Amino acid sequence: MILAHPNIEESIGNKIISNIIAQQKNTEVRHLDQLYPDFKIDIKTEQEALLSAETIVFQYPLFWYSTPAILKEWIDQVFQYGFAFGANSYNLEGKKIILSFTIGSPTTDYPQDIIDKITFHLKGLSQYCKMDFLGVLFCNDINNYTDGAKEKAIDRSNSQAEKLIELINQ
Amino acid sequence: MILAHPNIEESIGNKIISNIIAQQKNTEVRHLDQLYPDFKIDIKTEQEALLSAETIVFQYPLFWYSTPAILKEWIDQVFQYGFAFGANSYNLEGKKIILSFTIGSPTTDYPQDIIDKITFHLKGLSQYCKMDFLGVLFCNDINNYTDGAKEKAIDRSNSQAEKLIELINQ
Repeated sequence: MILAHPNIEESIGNKIISNIIAQQKNTEVRHLDQLYPDFKIDIKTEQEALLSAETIVFQYPLFWYSTPAILKEWIDQVFQYGFAFGANSYNLEGKKIILSFTIGSPTTDYPQDIIDKITFHLKGLSQYCKMDFLGVLFCNDINNYTDGAKEKAIDRSNSQAEKLIELINQ
Repeated sequence: MILAHPNIEESIGNKIISNIIAQQKNTEVRHLDQLYPDFKIDIKTEQEALLSAETIVFQYPLFWYSTPAILKEWIDQVFQYGFAFGANSYNLEGKKIILSFTIGSPTTDYPQDIIDKITFHLKGLSQYCKMDFLGVLFCNDINNYTDGAKEKAIDRSNSQAEKLIELINQ
């Protein structure tokens, strides 16, 4: 799991999901903000981590209809020509990839065509690199602080973690 | 102009366009990679630069169907609640915004529906902040190193700069 979150201790969804995944067998959670506070990605280490993985999960909060910047920097640095694509070097070919994110606002703002648009660049990335795109999981309304909303957000986060484990193991 | 390019000296399109814009009256080019090599955005300075602008141009090379990470980090830091939106504080309301980018591969890969998808998050940003989205300009095939291709890329970049000036002045 490639986790991007600038403030994981304050997080509900991303903390719950990444903690549950970290407790599973044969999983590794790489928290980019903790590993690279200066955005200087260790490309070799990250490429080796990808090579050793069967399934790659991008876990992040949706920021302005896209990923946090550190995940984009990680992608731009790690998915290089000659490693992830081109020159007959599709080293990630056939690896499974899943997007798992959280959204602050209610789902009604995010019908399927919007989800398709905000995940287009990552689906495109995985297709370009001949990876096996397994799908998108998200939970909504994660920053709702009204009565009882936090408990529901926790429930949705646990449910998303369950679905993620199912998808990984399928 | 908010310019994001990790290696502007090696650039064709972004260098030409940003240089031409810098030579116009009443313009300012802010090169994020030069200003913030460590990604630590000076939020106050950037917000003041936006407040003093009538038109804002995002100028960048398309990386993996999206912006370079530093432009995303700049957006996430600068377009804050209470400044760009929310709490009745839409300080950028009515300001004009234009996307101007360059694409490595040939245009045939990028029909209008793809352009709509790869710019959706930035159009969404501007709408959320009640800005006036003026449109998208791009030139393609910018990394084609075959015979005569560089000259054509230079022509397309000059032409994009001209269109950009027209759009700014309209």
